[in-house]
Amino acid sequence: MTIQNVPAAILLIHCDDQPGLVAAVTQFIRQHGGNILDLDQHTDKEHKQFFMRVAWELDAFAVEQTNIEKQFAQEVGNPYRMRWELCFSDEKPRMAIFVSKMFHCLYDILSRYKANEWFVDIPLIISNHAHVESIANQFGIECYILPITQENKLAQEAKQLALLKQHKTDFIVLARYMQILSPQFVAQYPNRIINIHHSFLPAFPGARPYHSAYERGVKIIGATSHYVTSTLDAGPIIEQGVVDVSHRDTVQELERKGRDLEKLVLARAIWHHLQREILVFENRTVVFS
Amino acid sequence: MTIQNVPAAILLIHCDDQPGLVAAVTQFIRQHGGNILDLDQHTDKEHKQFFMRVAWELDAFAVEQTNIEKQFAQEVGNPYRMRWELCFSDEKPRMAIFVSKMFHCLYDILSRYKANEWFVDIPLIISNHAHVESIANQFGIECYILPITQENKLAQEAKQLALLKQHKTDFIVLARYMQILSPQFVAQYPNRIINIHHSFLPAFPGARPYHSAYERGVKIIGATSHYVTSTLDAGPIIEQGVVDVSHRDTVQELERKGRDLEKLVLARAIWHHLQREILVFENRTVVFS
Amino acid sequence: MTIQNVPAAILLIHCDDQPGLVAAVTQFIRQHGGNILDLDQHTDKEHKQFFMRVAWELDAFAVEQTNIEKQFAQEVGNPYRMRWELCFSDEKPRMAIFVSKMFHCLYDILSRYKANEWFVDIPLIISNHAHVESIANQFGIECYILPITQENKLAQEAKQLALLKQHKTDFIVLARYMQILSPQFVAQYPNRIINIHHSFLPAFPGARPYHSAYERGVKIIGATSHYVTSTLDAGPIIEQGVVDVSHRDTVQELERKGRDLEKLVLARAIWHHLQREILVFENRTVVFS
Amino acid sequence: MTIQNVPAAILLIHCDDQPGLVAAVTQFIRQHGGNILDLDQHTDKEHKQFFMRVAWELDAFAVEQTNIEKQFAQEVGNPYRMRWELCFSDEKPRMAIFVSKMFHCLYDILSRYKANEWFVDIPLIISNHAHVESIANQFGIECYILPITQENKLAQEAKQLALLKQHKTDFIVLARYMQILSPQFVAQYPNRIINIHHSFLPAFPGARPYHSAYERGVKIIGATSHYVTSTLDAGPIIEQGVVDVSHRDTVQELERKGRDLEKLVLARAIWHHLQREILVFENRTVVFS
Repeated sequence: MTIQNVPAAILLIHCDDQPGLVAAVTQFIRQHGGNILDLDQHTDKEHKQFFMRVAWELDAFAVEQTNIEKQFAQEVGNPYRMRWELCFSDEKPRMAIFVSKMFHCLYDILSRYKANEWFVDIPLIISNHAHVESIANQFGIECYILPITQENKLAQEAKQLALLKQHKTDFIVLARYMQILSPQFVAQYPNRIINIHHSFLPAFPGARPYHSAYERGVKIIGATSHYVTSTLDAGPIIEQGVVDVSHRDTVQELERKGRDLEKLVLARAIWHHLQREILVFENRTVVFS
Repeated sequence: MTIQNVPAAILLIHCDDQPGLVAAVTQFIRQHGGNILDLDQHTDKEHKQFFMRVAWELDAFAVEQTNIEKQFAQEVGNPYRMRWELCFSDEKPRMAIFVSKMFHCLYDILSRYKANEWFVDIPLIISNHAHVESIANQFGIECYILPITQENKLAQEAKQLALLKQHKTDFIVLARYMQILSPQFVAQYPNRIINIHHSFLPAFPGARPYHSAYERGVKIIGATSHYVTSTLDAGPIIEQGVVDVSHRDTVQELERKGRDLEKLVLARAIWHHLQREILVFENRTVVFS
Repeated sequence: MTIQNVPAAILLIHCDDQPGLVAAVTQFIRQHGGNILDLDQHTDKEHKQFFMRVAWELDAFAVEQTNIEKQFAQEVGNPYRMRWELCFSDEKPRMAIFVSKMFHCLYDILSRYKANEWFVDIPLIISNHAHVESIANQFGIECYILPITQENKLAQEAKQLALLKQHKTDFIVLARYMQILSPQFVAQYPNRIINIHHSFLPAFPGARPYHSAYERGVKIIGATSHYVTSTLDAGPIIEQGVVDVSHRDTVQELERKGRDLEKLVLARAIWHHLQREILVFENRTVVFS
Repeated sequence: MTIQNVPAAILLIHCDDQPGLVAAVTQFIRQHGGNILDLDQHTDKEHKQFFMRVAWELDAFAVEQTNIEKQFAQEVGNPYRMRWELCFSDEKPRMAIFVSKMFHCLYDILSRYKANEWFVDIPLIISNHAHVESIANQFGIECYILPITQENKLAQEAKQLALLKQHKTDFIVLARYMQILSPQFVAQYPNRIINIHHSFLPAFPGARPYHSAYERGVKIIGATSHYVTSTLDAGPIIEQGVVDVSHRDTVQELERKGRDLEKLVLARAIWHHLQREILVFENRTVVFS
């Protein structure tokens, strides 16, 4: 659920399941005068894990914003051995875009950005091809061209990481970036790199999924947005979408229909990430939407 | 979320929004040793209303099952001026089916019943046509034929109500029942009569929606399941479903495709009702699924 | 497109692409006084193959029904080196059902059968478990129980084949039949055995696809109907369907949601087969619907 | 089906149904050495109308491109009293965009244009608000601001029509243009003005459909693309799309989800129009896709 027009705290919690968790968290908020805007929880019965997302208004909240983290740790988080993430609705996340030579997702993201659809900053675009420059200029965004070869890959990744740090990047979107990131790179942004893969994973991972879908004669194609891990196209899935196809659709047609799907599925994943609705456990996502 | 294999209490709550509601309810459960199985809440910001569904295990719960209602009322429900509904996962609801001359929904419901897909009893079928008898016999269910004319309507409805009471019916499913129930009848089962309408409401209410859909040249048709109110096809919507159509589809084809949709949409609505996932406010439903 | 209420010929054609094919076929129909009810064609540009389905009224057609095949062969089919299949709208296909222990698809098929939704005869059900007998009796259909072990498999398949022949079976539906048919068996009914697999193929072939889907954390599950070939779950796909799932869905919930999908996807595949809308080429289907 | 990389003729035909139509058209193509790329036909049995779309290669076609129209008229079109439209795959249609203050559809269209997704020219944008200028500049497209009041409406429309003519506009896309065009204006571009309406028509025509959808408590919202006629939101439907919503979705959320749908549904309608796949009859469309 969208938090809008009001300073709010958002707390994502994950811990072993045990009685009294919801009571403890809601009591904490209540005691200090907070008003809950939204609360969602999920219990994974199989693994006995507890997940929660709660948002509350800060207006009448008695704890200073800078002290909430500490106070929560002391009163609830530590006693219940929780992992948690606290953020505030007025903090604008900073997102970097990586892109290669296909620009439909890039255009879609930048259009949403310019139309103020998302509460986000996009300080930079990184590409391995120079083609992107005119689009970046058109939308007034800084753009760095870093061509990748087998030889220079780690060196270029080092430059990418430096740029990301310099621009205080919170997370990265691979908007059809046709390079595989090294495990070292991925380790710098755990659950902070969102990829769009142009198939209904786990079907057709890797290269040329539309060709494979055509060969197999499927009647539905898909797109999958997931966090990047060190295993190709195997990270925790955030969003998937599908569209009907038929024998009439050539590979070219699948690509055309697929582009619209990729845009939509990636945009939805970014939205969930921006809303801090996602928790990851055992390579699966909990998406509180 | 499905509650299974464990004696559990399910509590549906509705009241004016105010701080501390979740804390109060979860504290009540916690204090008495209950373990929450599932919790979902919703705040209607516009109308400042609070809705909640919570389920907890009864095994270690310190309050006797027969006393829970009273205890909850005293400790939480009355102080916060809540409306609530308490039920238990081992209570099997009793459902009556009303049907006329189209039997696809009836077959679908009875097949699910026989396959033990639902935790429900179906003590009786009521129809205004004799055709249903062989199907009722085939599935071993009592069946009453009560033909309706303009003249005998209220008298027949009185007989229907008597039968429903006699069979201790909790709720009614109109599985393509082509009679309009009187307001008096509806008033006996508020939010307890589920209808399936063969269009995407509010488009095409009333008779012959597939003909109207064909005439208008829509590219998608739908089906809508809703609680029956005294206004025709205007009750709170529980579920909707759609299917693509094209210029190739005649009215007959729309009817064919629509039948599959009607079965599915009605079955989903019954499922939500059986799971006690539905709250109604201002002619809209909150469905905690 | 459905052919109804009128004696019609349906011709399915497949051959190498070449100029004049549509003209030749439509001239043949026209010359002999036939009125085209429906015509659809598809050219596979990559493989240079031509596919066509045409249906025409027989009322004023000058060629005797029993001579059409020969006449068409002589005038069009042989000169253009076509493969074709001719059938008539008043021939009722005969379908056998194979089923194991899950009956949702079986119930769905039999309900449609009894409601005269399909123009088909169902002379027999074959199962490897005795549980099916009461359902078969309930719907008045002959039922044969042939338990399968590793040892008796080929012998039992011989009995199955004998039964199929004895009942003049045109095609077979595996309505959740949990046995793998031998290549010899499959060879007897090429593109005449329809299976429903409970995943979005090619993802999750083989056993326990819902468990695999859960493990992978997909956000959409699917079902796939395909013709059976000698390679498990790899035959030409006829129909696929999907339904959204979330982190809230346990394996049990995936199975529940999946059952509805399986029923629907299998029923649609049977419908296309009954309408003679399907042609197979290179393990892919052309479905003229 | 997309025609690509090859000079082709596309013929759209509509006439009273009668025997021999397909034979006559395909014979015409064959006789003159044309090779059919795609053929689709539809017979409206109720109204006894015949519709056809056929595309053929011009490479080996014996009739000069400029003579095809005349030749077809003489040999087939006039004898069978057809209405037809002939065009060529190398003719780039010219499209004008009308837009008011919401720019998601505009951005989507311009992004596709810049990415060469469509074979189209966009010579001008017309708006009743100045806000659009920076976007038009960003994409390098001429832009005319013509504010509309009750008093100046017809005068401004006259200017619009002059601009459209000056820029040789073939068709107009209303990409969320919040003005009702006068019947006189509409009459200048029959079946040449494509509108996107932000509801699942015929539900919620007119203003504020998302508010109405929210009030009614629907579980699915939609968007509809249609040709503009003189009756508001009642023209022939080209495309519709839907997305699931729930009680959690405020009007603001419906608008957010709806925007993605509007973009997609409008883009699909434009695609069909550009592919010359649409025929209109009795306020309904035949879309050969």
